[in-house]
Amino acid sequence: MAKANLFYAQSGGVTAVINASACGVIETARQHKAEIGKVYAGRNGIIGALTEELIDTSKETAATVAALRHTPAGAFGSCRYKLKSLEDNRAEYQRLMDVFRAHNIRYFLYNGGGDSQDTANKVSMLSQKEGFPITCIGIPKTVDNDLPVTDNCPGFGSVAKYVAVSIREAGLDVASMCESSTKVFVMEVMGRHAGWIAGAAGLAAEKEGDAPHIIIFPEIAFNKAAFMRKVKACVKRHGYCAVVVSEGAHYKDGKFLADAGGTDAFGHTQLGGVAPFLANLIKQELGYKYHWAVADYLQRSARHIASATDVEQAYAMGKAAVDFALAGKNAVMPTIVRKPGKSYRWTVGEASLAEVANVEKPMPRDYITRDGFGITQKARDYFSPLIRGEDYPPFKNGLPDYARLKNVLVTKKLPIWKAP
Amino acid sequence: MAKANLFYAQSGGVTAVINASACGVIETARQHKAEIGKVYAGRNGIIGALTEELIDTSKETAATVAALRHTPAGAFGSCRYKLKSLEDNRAEYQRLMDVFRAHNIRYFLYNGGGDSQDTANKVSMLSQKEGFPITCIGIPKTVDNDLPVTDNCPGFGSVAKYVAVSIREAGLDVASMCESSTKVFVMEVMGRHAGWIAGAAGLAAEKEGDAPHIIIFPEIAFNKAAFMRKVKACVKRHGYCAVVVSEGAHYKDGKFLADAGGTDAFGHTQLGGVAPFLANLIKQELGYKYHWAVADYLQRSARHIASATDVEQAYAMGKAAVDFALAGKNAVMPTIVRKPGKSYRWTVGEASLAEVANVEKPMPRDYITRDGFGITQKARDYFSPLIRGEDYPPFKNGLPDYARLKNVLVTKKLPIWKAP
Repeated sequence: MAKANLFYAQSGGVTAVINASACGVIETARQHKAEIGKVYAGRNGIIGALTEELIDTSKETAATVAALRHTPAGAFGSCRYKLKSLEDNRAEYQRLMDVFRAHNIRYFLYNGGGDSQDTANKVSMLSQKEGFPITCIGIPKTVDNDLPVTDNCPGFGSVAKYVAVSIREAGLDVASMCESSTKVFVMEVMGRHAGWIAGAAGLAAEKEGDAPHIIIFPEIAFNKAAFMRKVKACVKRHGYCAVVVSEGAHYKDGKFLADAGGTDAFGHTQLGGVAPFLANLIKQELGYKYHWAVADYLQRSARHIASATDVEQAYAMGKAAVDFALAGKNAVMPTIVRKPGKSYRWTVGEASLAEVANVEKPMPRDYITRDGFGITQKARDYFSPLIRGEDYPPFKNGLPDYARLKNVLVTKKLPIWKAP
Repeated sequence: MAKANLFYAQSGGVTAVINASACGVIETARQHKAEIGKVYAGRNGIIGALTEELIDTSKETAATVAALRHTPAGAFGSCRYKLKSLEDNRAEYQRLMDVFRAHNIRYFLYNGGGDSQDTANKVSMLSQKEGFPITCIGIPKTVDNDLPVTDNCPGFGSVAKYVAVSIREAGLDVASMCESSTKVFVMEVMGRHAGWIAGAAGLAAEKEGDAPHIIIFPEIAFNKAAFMRKVKACVKRHGYCAVVVSEGAHYKDGKFLADAGGTDAFGHTQLGGVAPFLANLIKQELGYKYHWAVADYLQRSARHIASATDVEQAYAMGKAAVDFALAGKNAVMPTIVRKPGKSYRWTVGEASLAEVANVEKPMPRDYITRDGFGITQKARDYFSPLIRGEDYPPFKNGLPDYARLKNVLVTKKLPIWKAP
């Protein structure tokens, strides 16, 4: 029998370091040519497996593969596509099996969040039943940091560093001008269900008076009166107020702040995000001149300011996934395990896919200050090591020199796939 | 007579490198202790001169002053405050004279844009008449890059680098996901009257298909139909479309796009900036899923990704201002002069304050492609050297370690200033 091939796919929202995991996968597989044939990557994630669009990574030079380590976003394409339950859409799983069989794929490495780990788990189970057993290994990835079991998720540390650096810099800007100009600055960050990213921005404040002064978490229902009191007190005391707000900020009844502003003149829901909404609310209530920023994709693609810890861990997760597969493990995901002790040390652990599938981990309540607007020392101790170290990409003509892949597709062997 | 003191003030919107100019001023002045007494900095810019809030920079250590070179925003505070004409508010100028006289200030170095150079020019003239001649030297600063005479303005190169890096990174993000998710990404950048910043973002696109695909300049009236056609063609061809829009984008009649969206349910003018407006317009017309970002202050304070060329020039301008003052020059501003030739070389030139006061320099038409949505090779040749080189600040615990000043005020000698 020909050597078994490996299929790697990126899933869901991309990050500054998901390609570092890809780099770990490909480089490690290339070191085990006796056991692993080719590494195929799904074009646009799992969709590429369904459509039989498999990228042959062996066509990429060692230098290009190495450059993936410093290249943000999904080099092979990713997608938001969740396979339905086996009962609802068995044909889709069957198609995966068919493609894997046709290309002698015996290893499936799925780089994503909780949904993806669920899918990988199901593929593993089904493949056993079908008599074409596929080794399924998850690789953790999410900027939201909401996967269980693992201490943190690759992708998070770099967003965390970006938002903390950004609010420190913008905070200095506002502080310089507040006497005669902008008094309130609101920065919106990602995190619809969990406030990890917003919380990490709190690292920027090291001394009394430093930005950010207020953080709004999705874990705490928004209390407008308390918020306004705090903004006012902050401007009185420090001359300005820098606010970090999670996109998932919501009222007690679960309604997002961003959705609360009604519709515009055309009857469309208000365009802005939560940052402009909140800034305007402050203007109405307190009269302060404001500015706001919405970093959106800038935050999760900011490879230029990636955390070295994050890059290292992303690579290690990719490498560990291949090592796990070669060691005969199945339906597991490597995790990051924080070792006890004062100085930060971590090691690679292991979780079953069943454990991590579809579970969301919110910020613990004791990471948030009692008033709900800041982070505790416990949170700082958790966040701080994750943003440590700089891992700058190479630059050319003043711009980061990111990998450009050939992304050559493997010749198809099956009929065209039609979604059932 | 005691040695003459020097007064330095920062004016208008701050930048990632205005403190590098301050560093150039203070370090150079400290090398000329025979000629220059103390360097006082205006607390919150020129307002500090009116209120007699003078920061004694001699209280800062050499290490702290050196750290200004890598610290963004205005370390002494800046302000948006334009002195009125001499006729309208002679008392204000008189007060400046009084404060300068009381503190034996014979040198006035004003670090700002066109307005500030106008003020410095007037102070120079008035001081001659008053018989207390003050040497007034301008130091160029503006992220907008709209000062005349000088080839470019300190502050601009770093914003330019930030926006080009950001749209390259976010572009890769969107490209990874466009098959099943976001198809259009709109990034709003600064520049109300001139499109230099928006134009510089165009450097990110080096090959056909690279982001950004469309740039909207304040120099070109917005043509909705042409824009929609271009967005549609771009999505068809490349799968996605990345747009950079200047905050000053406007219709033929001069109305800003950002103001065109009407009011929300409360009757307030729409909250969002031009990015959400444009993204929503595309959704309405073409149905594409979108994301948008507004970098706002993040872009002009992003010292972590400053251009080394910019930092060097900002420092050089500060140094040159002191050198000019010591050489007996007056009512002038150092400029950046681009030397002819293929490789980028520059030198320090000189402009009279009268020449630069209150003149705005828009992007030349031949920097913009014929269709109005991109930059020409001529623009690339101009922009490219300005973003070259990285000049990372030192980091501590994963975050940039920016200067913290003591900002000790000099004892006041005059009655409290009351604005007339």
